[in-house]
Amino acid sequence: MEAKKRTCQVQLTADGRLKHFLGIQGLSQALLTEILDTAESFANMGEQAVKKVPLLRGRTVVNLFFENSTRTRATFELAAKRLSADVLNLDIKTSSTAKGETLMDTLQNMEAMHADMFVVRHADSGAAHFIASQITPRVAIINAGDGRHAHPTQAMLDMFTIRRHKGSFEGLKVAIVGDLLHSRVARSQIRALSTLGVEEVRVVAPKTLIPTGIDSLGVKVFTRLEQGLKDVDVVIMLRLQKERMSGAFLPSENEFYHQYGLTQSRLRLAKPDAIVMHPGPINRGVEIESAVADGPQSVILQQVGYGIATRMAVMSMAMSGQLQERSQ
Amino acid sequence: MEAKKRTCQVQLTADGRLKHFLGIQGLSQALLTEILDTAESFANMGEQAVKKVPLLRGRTVVNLFFENSTRTRATFELAAKRLSADVLNLDIKTSSTAKGETLMDTLQNMEAMHADMFVVRHADSGAAHFIASQITPRVAIINAGDGRHAHPTQAMLDMFTIRRHKGSFEGLKVAIVGDLLHSRVARSQIRALSTLGVEEVRVVAPKTLIPTGIDSLGVKVFTRLEQGLKDVDVVIMLRLQKERMSGAFLPSENEFYHQYGLTQSRLRLAKPDAIVMHPGPINRGVEIESAVADGPQSVILQQVGYGIATRMAVMSMAMSGQLQERSQ
Amino acid sequence: MEAKKRTCQVQLTADGRLKHFLGIQGLSQALLTEILDTAESFANMGEQAVKKVPLLRGRTVVNLFFENSTRTRATFELAAKRLSADVLNLDIKTSSTAKGETLMDTLQNMEAMHADMFVVRHADSGAAHFIASQITPRVAIINAGDGRHAHPTQAMLDMFTIRRHKGSFEGLKVAIVGDLLHSRVARSQIRALSTLGVEEVRVVAPKTLIPTGIDSLGVKVFTRLEQGLKDVDVVIMLRLQKERMSGAFLPSENEFYHQYGLTQSRLRLAKPDAIVMHPGPINRGVEIESAVADGPQSVILQQVGYGIATRMAVMSMAMSGQLQERSQ
Repeated sequence: MEAKKRTCQVQLTADGRLKHFLGIQGLSQALLTEILDTAESFANMGEQAVKKVPLLRGRTVVNLFFENSTRTRATFELAAKRLSADVLNLDIKTSSTAKGETLMDTLQNMEAMHADMFVVRHADSGAAHFIASQITPRVAIINAGDGRHAHPTQAMLDMFTIRRHKGSFEGLKVAIVGDLLHSRVARSQIRALSTLGVEEVRVVAPKTLIPTGIDSLGVKVFTRLEQGLKDVDVVIMLRLQKERMSGAFLPSENEFYHQYGLTQSRLRLAKPDAIVMHPGPINRGVEIESAVADGPQSVILQQVGYGIATRMAVMSMAMSGQLQERSQ
Repeated sequence: MEAKKRTCQVQLTADGRLKHFLGIQGLSQALLTEILDTAESFANMGEQAVKKVPLLRGRTVVNLFFENSTRTRATFELAAKRLSADVLNLDIKTSSTAKGETLMDTLQNMEAMHADMFVVRHADSGAAHFIASQITPRVAIINAGDGRHAHPTQAMLDMFTIRRHKGSFEGLKVAIVGDLLHSRVARSQIRALSTLGVEEVRVVAPKTLIPTGIDSLGVKVFTRLEQGLKDVDVVIMLRLQKERMSGAFLPSENEFYHQYGLTQSRLRLAKPDAIVMHPGPINRGVEIESAVADGPQSVILQQVGYGIATRMAVMSMAMSGQLQERSQ
Repeated sequence: MEAKKRTCQVQLTADGRLKHFLGIQGLSQALLTEILDTAESFANMGEQAVKKVPLLRGRTVVNLFFENSTRTRATFELAAKRLSADVLNLDIKTSSTAKGETLMDTLQNMEAMHADMFVVRHADSGAAHFIASQITPRVAIINAGDGRHAHPTQAMLDMFTIRRHKGSFEGLKVAIVGDLLHSRVARSQIRALSTLGVEEVRVVAPKTLIPTGIDSLGVKVFTRLEQGLKDVDVVIMLRLQKERMSGAFLPSENEFYHQYGLTQSRLRLAKPDAIVMHPGPINRGVEIESAVADGPQSVILQQVGYGIATRMAVMSMAMSGQLQERSQ
C-alpha cells in the first residue's frame, strides 16, 4: 500500500495527471481509460496521408536502452517521430558507464542537454522508478521494461487491443498463459485488467513458472491449459523467455508445447469469438501453433500497430503533465 | 519470359506504374525514361538553399540491411530524408532472426507498425522480390542489392549519368569492364542499356570472371581490354569484389591491373570524349589508375550525387504507385 | 606565426567570417565574442516550448567520428537537429577505410552526396585542418577533437560558461588543473582565455603532466595545487585521461587525488565566489571530490547545456560563411 502510494506520487502531478509512465500500479480506472481514449485518436493515423502530429515538436526524446531490444526501441522511435519529436538513440551498455562515470552523472548530463523525455529499458526492476524519483524528476520517464517488474506500455496496448475487439472490459474472462515467472508483461497486464474491471483473470502455467504469491493479485491459478481456456473471451499467450531461463524450469520446449502450446483444437475450448494475443516475437511451435498465430482469431499483428498508438498516447500525456509542472 | 512477366507484375500496378522497385527486368523503355526524367527534377536540388521536398512527408521508410553497406545505406537515408520521410535504420543480422522469430514475422511486424517502404539489402538473390510478392506486398519494396542478382538503383544512376553526359543513348557504344562474375550491378546495367537503346554493349573481363551464358543478353564479349575499349563512348569499370571471391579466379591483383586496369594510355583507345564511370568504392591501382579516376574524363564523383536523385525518383514513384493501389 | 596565418586563412572567408571551425588559434577577440553572443541567443532555447530554429533546414550534417565519443556526438547531433538540419551518423572506423578505399575518397564521396557540414573527431592532430584545407574545402568542417591538438567547441563552451557566470573576462584569474599533457582541451582553452583578455592563466599539474614549452603560451606554471588555486576566480579541472596514458606518468590515482584532487578545503583557497568547471565525464574521487562536483560553486552541469548553444552558434556561423563563399 505504501509502495503503491509512492509510485502514484512519482508518476502523477499534484492534480493527478500523468507526468511519467512507470507502471500500472497506482493508476486509476479513469486514467487508464484516458490513455486508451487518447490512443484511439492516434490509432487510425497509420492509414492517413500524413501520419504526423506536432504534439512533441521541438521536444527531444532520448532512447536509453541499457538492455537491447530492437523491436521495442523501433516502436518508441516511430511513436516519437510521429509526434514530431527529435529522437536520439543512445546505446548505454555497461561499457560506457564503466568509463568511470556514474549512471547518475550520465543521466544528469543528458538532462542538462535539455532532453525532455527518457525512454528507459533496463534489466533491473525499479530502474525507471529510481530515475524518475531520484535522478531526473523533471525529465518525463517512460518505462520500456524493467527487469521482471513491469512493461506497462505493453500492458496498455494489450488493454487497447481488448477494448477494440471486445467493446468493453465488463464481464470478460481473460486467460494469461505461459511463463509468468520470467514475464515483465504479466504483472502489468494483471493490474491493468483488474483496474479496468474484467470479470475474471486467469493465469495458466506449469507450477514451476508461477510466481509465489500471485493469487494475492486476485487471479485464478490453473496448471492445466484445457481448464484455463474454458469459456474465456481473451487468450493472452506469453513468450517463452528462453534467454531469461537459467535453471531447469522446463523439461523441454517440446514438452512445453505438448502441455501448454496453444493449438487450434485447444482454442476451441474458449468462447467461439475469443481473441488470441501475444506480445511477440512469437516462437512458432513452442508456445503457439502457426495455424493459430495466423488464424482468424489472432489479433497479434494488430497489436503491433496499436502499440504505436498507445505509446504515442502515453508519451504525449506524460510530456503534457511535465510541462504543466515545469510552468508552475 | 515467364519469370520476366512475373517480376513485371510484382513491381507494377495494374495500369503499369511502379509500386516496388525490384529489378530492371520487365520494365519498359518508357518507364525507365520516366525514372530518369523524375531524377532530373531532383538532380539540382543539392545546390538549392532548401533541399527538401515533401513528397514522402509523414511516410516511414525502414532500411532493412541484412548485409552491411554503409555507403549504400547512407545514400538511401539521405534520399528518404530529402523527401521528408521518417527513416528507421534496422540492423537485421542473422542474430536477430535467430531469436526464434522467422524473417516473415519480423517483416510483417514492421508492416504492422505502418512502415510504408522497405529498402532491402540481402545476400540472397531474389530476396527483395520474395518479400514484395510473398510477405509484405502492400509495403513498397526497394531493392538495394540482392546477392549477385541485381542492384537496380545503381544501374539507373549509371543510366542517368550517361544521359546527362552524352545527351541520349542512341548510337552509344558502352564497355563494362572487370569482375562480371561477382557483380550484381553488371546484369542490371546490361538490361537497362539494352532497354534504353544503346547501339552496343560490350563486356570485358578475363574468361574466369565472365558468367556463362552472358552473350544471351545481347552483349559482345571481349577478353582483351585493348580491343574492348576501342572507340567506345562510355567505360564502366566494375569494382573488384575481393571480399566475394572465394576461389582462385585471379592470379593476383597486380596481374589484374597489368591486364585489365584502366590506365591513361589505354583510355586513349576509347573515343576522345569517352566518360569513365565506377560504382565505387574504387580500388586505386587495382582496377583503375589514380590519374584516370581523378582525371577530366572521370564522372565517378558526379555519379554519387546522381545516386541520391535517382533514389529519390524511384522511392517517390513507388510510393505513389502503392498509394494509388491502396486507395482502390 | 606562419602556421597561425595558415589556420586563419583556412577557417575564414576572405572578409574574415567563419567558414570552418578548426581551432581557436588565429581567431580574433571580435570573432570569439561573436560566437559567444550568437550562443547567447540560443542558450535559453532549451526552455522554450519549441526548441528549433530553421537556420540549417534542408542542410545535411554528417557526424564523422573516427574515434568513439558518445557524449560529444550526442551534443553535436542535438545541436544540428535544433537547427533543423538532417543528420547522418557515420561510424568510420579503420575497418571501413581498410576496404581499400582511401580516406580522401570516402570524404569526397560524402561531399558528392551534397553533405553541407562534417563534424570530425579524429585521433590524429591536424585531421580536421587537413580535411578542410586539402580534401573537401567547400564542406564546412567542425573540429570535434583531433588528437592532443585541439577541441575548440569545448573551449568555447567553457568561455561561454565563464562569461555567463562572471560577466566578463577582464581581471579574471583562471586556473587549469590536471593532466595537461594528454588534454586536447587545455591548449584551446589557454588560447581562448588569452585572446579574450583574462588577467592571468595558470596551469597546475605534476611536472610529468606539463607539456614542455607551455610557458611560451603566456601561462604561469604551478606544480602545487594549493599555490595554483590561491585567489583564482575560475577553476577548470581536466579529466584524468586514463585511457590515453601509456607510460607511468603517475604513481597512482590515489596519489593524484591526494595531491591534485579538488576538495572542498582546497577550494577555499580560491576566491569565495570562484566557479568550478570540468569538461566531463568526471572521475569522482580521482580529480574531484563529489562534494565539490555537486556543490554550490560547481557549474559542471550548466556547461553541458551551454555546449549545445555554443555548438549551434559555431555550426550556424560556419554554414553561413560557406554559403556566402559558394555564392560568389
